[in-house]
Order: sequence, then C-alpha cells, then structure tokens
Amino acid sequence: MTQSRWQRLSEWPLTAAAVIFLVAYTWAVIGDLRGPADRVAETVITATWVMFALDYLANLTLAPRRWKWFYTHVFDLLIVALPLFRPLRLLRLVTLLAVLQRTAGAAFRGRVVIYVAGAAALLVFVAALAVLDTERAAPDPTITNFGDALWWAFVTVTTVGYGDFAPVTTQGRLIAGALMLGGVALLGVVTATLASWIVERVSQQEEDEQAATRGEIRALGEQLAQLQHTLNQRSNTAELSVNDH
Amino acid sequence: MTQSRWQRLSEWPLTAAAVIFLVAYTWAVIGDLRGPADRVAETVITATWVMFALDYLANLTLAPRRWKWFYTHVFDLLIVALPLFRPLRLLRLVTLLAVLQRTAGAAFRGRVVIYVAGAAALLVFVAALAVLDTERAAPDPTITNFGDALWWAFVTVTTVGYGDFAPVTTQGRLIAGALMLGGVALLGVVTATLASWIVERVSQQEEDEQAATRGEIRALGEQLAQLQHTLNQRSNTAELSVNDH
Amino acid sequence: MTQSRWQRLSEWPLTAAAVIFLVAYTWAVIGDLRGPADRVAETVITATWVMFALDYLANLTLAPRRWKWFYTHVFDLLIVALPLFRPLRLLRLVTLLAVLQRTAGAAFRGRVVIYVAGAAALLVFVAALAVLDTERAAPDPTITNFGDALWWAFVTVTTVGYGDFAPVTTQGRLIAGALMLGGVALLGVVTATLASWIVERVSQQEEDEQAATRGEIRALGEQLAQLQHTLNQRSNTAELSVNDH
Amino acid sequence: MTQSRWQRLSEWPLTAAAVIFLVAYTWAVIGDLRGPADRVAETVITATWVMFALDYLANLTLAPRRWKWFYTHVFDLLIVALPLFRPLRLLRLVTLLAVLQRTAGAAFRGRVVIYVAGAAALLVFVAALAVLDTERAAPDPTITNFGDALWWAFVTVTTVGYGDFAPVTTQGRLIAGALMLGGVALLGVVTATLASWIVERVSQQEEDEQAATRGEIRALGEQLAQLQHTLNQRSNTAELSVNDH
Repeated sequence: MTQSRWQRLSEWPLTAAAVIFLVAYTWAVIGDLRGPADRVAETVITATWVMFALDYLANLTLAPRRWKWFYTHVFDLLIVALPLFRPLRLLRLVTLLAVLQRTAGAAFRGRVVIYVAGAAALLVFVAALAVLDTERAAPDPTITNFGDALWWAFVTVTTVGYGDFAPVTTQGRLIAGALMLGGVALLGVVTATLASWIVERVSQQEEDEQAATRGEIRALGEQLAQLQHTLNQRSNTAELSVNDH
Repeated sequence: MTQSRWQRLSEWPLTAAAVIFLVAYTWAVIGDLRGPADRVAETVITATWVMFALDYLANLTLAPRRWKWFYTHVFDLLIVALPLFRPLRLLRLVTLLAVLQRTAGAAFRGRVVIYVAGAAALLVFVAALAVLDTERAAPDPTITNFGDALWWAFVTVTTVGYGDFAPVTTQGRLIAGALMLGGVALLGVVTATLASWIVERVSQQEEDEQAATRGEIRALGEQLAQLQHTLNQRSNTAELSVNDH
Repeated sequence: MTQSRWQRLSEWPLTAAAVIFLVAYTWAVIGDLRGPADRVAETVITATWVMFALDYLANLTLAPRRWKWFYTHVFDLLIVALPLFRPLRLLRLVTLLAVLQRTAGAAFRGRVVIYVAGAAALLVFVAALAVLDTERAAPDPTITNFGDALWWAFVTVTTVGYGDFAPVTTQGRLIAGALMLGGVALLGVVTATLASWIVERVSQQEEDEQAATRGEIRALGEQLAQLQHTLNQRSNTAELSVNDH
Repeated sequence: MTQSRWQRLSEWPLTAAAVIFLVAYTWAVIGDLRGPADRVAETVITATWVMFALDYLANLTLAPRRWKWFYTHVFDLLIVALPLFRPLRLLRLVTLLAVLQRTAGAAFRGRVVIYVAGAAALLVFVAALAVLDTERAAPDPTITNFGDALWWAFVTVTTVGYGDFAPVTTQGRLIAGALMLGGVALLGVVTATLASWIVERVSQQEEDEQAATRGEIRALGEQLAQLQHTLNQRSNTAELSVNDH
C-alpha cells in the first residue's frame, strides 16, 4: 500500500473523527462533566486520538523517504503527542471546509471570503472551549463560563481587547496567542480582499485606460499573422508572374 | 401585481418608516421614557414594525418562486420576527445613503469613502443606542448614559478597546460583536482605498513605465490595419501592372 | 487685492503663527502656568488667534463667490470660533511639512512615509497636550501629567488601547476620537504603502512575466511605422521599375 | 585600510557579539542575577559593548567623508552611547536573518514572510526582556516575571492590548512604544503580503483577461521583425527579377 492511497482512504474517516472529537470536546467542556458522563466523553476523545495516532504512524511507515517526512511533519507529531495541542486536530475540519466550498464553485475571491469566515468562526469557537477548559481549573480565574469565554475570544480575534476577561494560566495564554495571530491574519485577509476588489473596480471604470489584456495581445498577433500570410501569397504570385513573364 | 412592482412602490415608504423608527427609537432610549411618552414612542415603533412585517409578507406572497425567496431571505425574517434584531431595520437607511450618493456622481473611490463614512457613523450611533437600551436594565451595568455608550461604541469600532466600559449582558455583547465586525471592515476599507490610491499614484509617476492600456493597444491595431490596407492596394496595383504588362 | 494674492502673502505669517501657538500652548499646558506667566502665554495664544481670525475674515471678504467659500469652509470657521478646536490651528504645520518635503525631492512613496510619520508625531504630541489640558480640570482624572498623556496618546494612536489611562470628560473624549481616527488612518497608510511596494517588487521579479509598459508598446509602434515606411518605398520603387520597364 | 574592507572584516565578529550579548542579557534578566554571576554577565555585556564602540570609532575614522557619515549614523551613536538603547544592538541579528534566508533562495514574498516572522519573534522576545529588566525595579510594577513580560509583549505587538499588564516607568514605556510601532508594521506587512497574493491570484483566473506581459509583447516584436525580414528579402528578389528582366 502506498502513502497516497492511505491518505485517500483515511481522508473521510479522519474528518469524521475530527467532527466527533469536536462534539465530544464541546459536550465535555460546556457540560463541565463529572462521573460516568465524563468517562464516556473522555473515551470518545481518546478513540479519536487513537485514529489520529494510527494515521501518523501509518504515514510514517508508508512514506517513501521516512526521515524527510518526519522532519517536515514535526507539527503533526506535536498535535498527536501533546494534549495541549489537542484542539489543533480540528484543523482537519478546514479540509472539510475546502471540500464543501469546492462544490460551491465560487470565484477565487468569494472562496477566500467563505474560507476565512468559516475558519475564523471555528477558531473562535474552539479557542473559547479550550480556554474555558484550562482557565476553569486556575486558582484565580476570570473566565468561568462558556458565554464569557466566547465573548473573550471574539474580543481578542478582532484585536479590540477590552481586558475585562484575560487568561491567567500559561496554557490559556498560549491558546490566546494562537487566537491573536488568527485575528491579525483575519484583519489582513479582510483588508486584502477588499483592496483587491477596489483596485479591480477602479481600473474597470474607464475602458480605454484599462490594462491591456492577453486576449487583446492575441488579437494583435492574429492580425500580424494575417499580414505575413498576405505577404507570402503575394510573394508567390509575384514570383509566378515574373517567371511566367 | 408583480414582486418587482411592489418593491418599487414600497421603496420610499419603507425608507421613511426606517427614518421614523430611528427618530422614535432614539427618543425612547435617550429620554429613558416613562408613562404616556413611552406609550407614544412604542406605538410609533410598532407602527413601523407593522410596515416591515407587511413588506415581508407581500414579498413572500408575490415572489415567483416562494420557497427560494424564503430560503435566501431568512435574514429578513429574523429582522422582522426578533425584537433583538430591531435595529437592523435601519439597514434600509444604507439604501438611502446609496440613493443620495448616486446623485452626487462621484468616482468609485470617492463613493466608497462616502458610503463607509456614512455607514460607520450610523453603525456607531445605533450600536450606542441599542447597547444603552439593553445594558441599562442589567444588574451591574457599566454603560448607563448615552454619552458613555457613544464613547464605548467609538472605542470599539476603531478596535482600540480601552475596557473602561464593556457590555455585561448577552444581548449587549451580540450588539458589540456586530460593532467589532463593523470595525474590522472599516479598517479594511480605509486601508484598501488608500492602497488602491497609492498603487495608482506610484504607477503614474513615470509615463514610460506605466502599464500599457487598451487605448494604446487599439492604436497599434489601427496601425496594423492600415498596413494590411496598403499591402492589399499594392497587391492589386502590382497585379494590374503585371497584367497590363 | 485678490484672494489668491492674500493667500500667497499670508502663507508664511500664518505658519509662523501656528509655530508660535504650538510653543506657547505647550509651555502653558506642560508648565501648568499660574499668575503672570499664564497671562503671557494666554496673550501670545490670543495674538495668534487674532491672526487666524483676520485671515478668515480677509478670505471671506476677498472670495469671488462669498457664500460658496463660506459653505465650503465651515470647518475653518469652527477652528477660529470654538476654543475646543483650537489645536486644529496646527493643521497649518502640515502645510509646512508639505513645503519641507517638497525640497527633499523624494519619490511619491517616500513622500507619503515622511508626511505620515510627521503628521502622526504632531497628532500624538498635540492630542497629549490637549487631553492633559482638559482632563486635569476634571473631578476624577486619570491623566494628570504630560508623561502619562503622551503614553496614553501613543497607546491610542496604535489602537493598542490598554485602558490604564482613558479620558473621562466629553471634551477629552472628542480629542480621543480624533486621535483614534488618526490611528486608523495611520494603520491604513502604513499597510497601503507596504502593499504597493510588495506588489511592485513581486511583479519585478520575473522580467518576462512583468506587465507590458507604455514604453514597450511605443517601441512596437515604431517598428510598425518602419515597416509601413519600407512598404511605401518599395511600392514607389516597384511602380517606378514597372513604369521604367 | 578602507571603510568597506573594515565592514567586510567586522561583519561576522559583530554578529557573534550580538548573539553573545543576547545570551548574556537573557541570562542576566531572567536569572535576576546577584553577586558573582551578575558580575560575569555584566562583564560579557560590557565586552560586546566595547566591540560595538570600537566598530563605531573605526567607521568614523575610516569614513571618506567623516561629517557626512556622522550625520547619517546618529542612530548608531545612540545605540553605542545610551544604555537605554542597548537592546537595539540586536538589530545586527536582523542582518544575520538576512544572510540565513539568502541561502534559502525563496521567492520575494516568501522571503518577506520569513523575515517578518523572525524579526517579530526577536522583537517580542527582546522587548519582554527589556521591559522586565526596567519594570522590576519600579516602585509599583505589574510586570514582575518573564512569563508575564512575554505575554504582555505578545498582547501589545498584535495591538490587542488587554491592559492586564502595562509598563509604568518612562523607560518601559519607550520600549513599549517601539514594540507598538513594530506591531503596526507587522499588521501592515501581513496584510500587504496577503493583498499582493490575492491580487495576483485573482488576475490569474481568466487567462484572456490577464494583464499582457513583457514576454508576450516581445513575441509580437519578433513576429514584426520576421515580417520586416520577409519584406526586405522580397524587395531584393523583386529588384533582382526586375534587373534580370
């Protein structure tokens, strides 16, 4: 079995595992589970973890150049090995997002907008869950329920940052850091998409002042080819007439 | 009666209803009305609501493909059905803004600037009203008068976010979220408009280094057509002369 | 005397008045003057105000279409008439900045950078002065010395907004609002300048893939003209030879 | 010995000095050293300072036009002369970053990303060190350990600005100001790089609608040259045939 075949086969099961992980994780964190319910949720989460771990091992085994794959996929190892990076397993769902919008068949800029809106919503939701999970256990927490966690995540991702809620644990701050980077990227993509749209609209206003396109250059080339053709024909005719003469 | 005819007929009455709603809502919130005055304001607000509800029903009835219209206008249903989304009826006024500036006849970039400045001012004003309305009733509010609400809205929309005032109710936070998204979009549009202007100015500095335009390509095409014409004429002359000969 | 002649004559005296106003205002605010010193500073500030008021009246008198000038310069009236807008007289200095950099002869993007850096520094300095002046008199101020005011202004203009200091008076908040708008514009110009530079550098990397320029299209046009010339000459030669024959 | 030879010779020793300075400074600040350990760290830091001072003097001595070099390198004098600007010696490491990525041979946009990510990480790390060093000695500090300092620096550079930690000393605020400017630049570069990428991708979608490139214009030029060549040959043939005749 080759690695690419494995990746084709494992794509949908892993996406399903990510969805199941998201549901179980949300349930465990928001419900603040105790006793048997917590054990059920933990079992489901562990089961999805086993799937991701198996996928990592299978890829490592099947990779044609094992060491190179290892070096270039250190990030995947961290996601599997460290509980802190557990929420990053949901990056799988970004793949799902990619599949969903491929069917939508939108133009490039439209796809970017869908992608970014989806990824930002997922990021805010998961960051709120993860921070609530970590902070609740801290000695002097400010974030103690999911409503506050979601509010904090939204205030952070837009870089507003009131400071009415802020993580106090190291792990919570690492999650917050990832969320802030996401916010900077979000601002960047929104601005860049708007800039691309405005630049296009401004340049489309006066037809004659627009940038010359490849289509127009091709038309010129065809005009020239026609000219060359005419010239060649005439050349032959003239030679013939001279010869005839 | 067709749907498009209804929309043409209802455009101005609905815009007027939005203006009346804005005035009555501002009066009710800032005046913190009690007794008969409150009943008058509420009656006016209810009357404008009836107009929006009637417009929704008329559109649903007249739409050629009713289910499709329903699916693509779920947002309109929310605005009409949920009191929380009441302020969104003012989105009508953005239409008004569009009409006003159409008469101004400005260039595309100028129109974007007018539009964004108007929409941002309206957004800040309405968000301040809505947050004050919601927060004032909360058990431990920080935003208690319109001055503070306006200051909070401005600090939020520019993404500065001091945190001296922050909403504490769920509904207030939903309004704040919409305002933050507006702020991110505002930053994006300001930057994008500036970027488009700078890109244009930089490329206009050295005439020879500017991008070739369609007008110039057309001039080349005419030069070529002239050449083809000369060649055809010569061809005929030569053939004639050869024949004559 | 025409209006344009008045504006040429008054340009430098008004710029000098703005500089003197800046020095006197800085001295009065930072020194927190009392007694005779305060009277001296106030007299100087009043003298510069008289100059701006005279300039406004002279412009209004000399304007060819007085009402149109009045309508389009309401802002100038506000600056002269309302003490709150006093610091805006320093907008004159932006003109000075424009003169200074004109002599530098830099390229467009370089000029934008100098302009924005200068305007942002002036904005932060003046906003800090104005906020300190207003807030110090408030019942429960957080900004009480120039160091704190400058720190607050810098935190605000970069849209960081810690909230350790924040204005509490209406006038202070109006100044803060202007500073925030300045911050949004600052972010926008920085990003836009960088974007323009990166777009240019990226497109310059592969010579063949660069956008065709007007210079290149002109070269093509000359090639075509040469061809037409050759063809015309040949035509004449051929006709001559046919005729000779 | 010429100045450029000195700069070539001193490049690597100075980079090494910057690395040693970074290590010693990190050790001194995080370890909050006392007694002999502190004396060792201080000696190492002084030794690297001597190297930077010597380099400044050597450049000043060897510069062909000494006064001009002095005027254009006032910044270098500040870095060497004022302890406050000590961390800026690490700007050397940005040079190192430049060397490292030159070997990577990435495309322009990729290089910008690596450069900015590296510079931002270095900036956050060094600002956290410097602020901790300054604030710890203040009477009423909020930043008292390296974890908090790093968290504060990250919250500041992304312009989120919770305000849970904020410097209270003048020196700490100067460092914070530099960090904020870095944050504004960071946001700008991220957005600009994304904008450049989106503009490129959007224009690549429809082949015919793409901007005409220099490669295509050159192809047209070659077609024209071929035409001219054909015409010249024919001209000669015709003349020959006429002559033969």
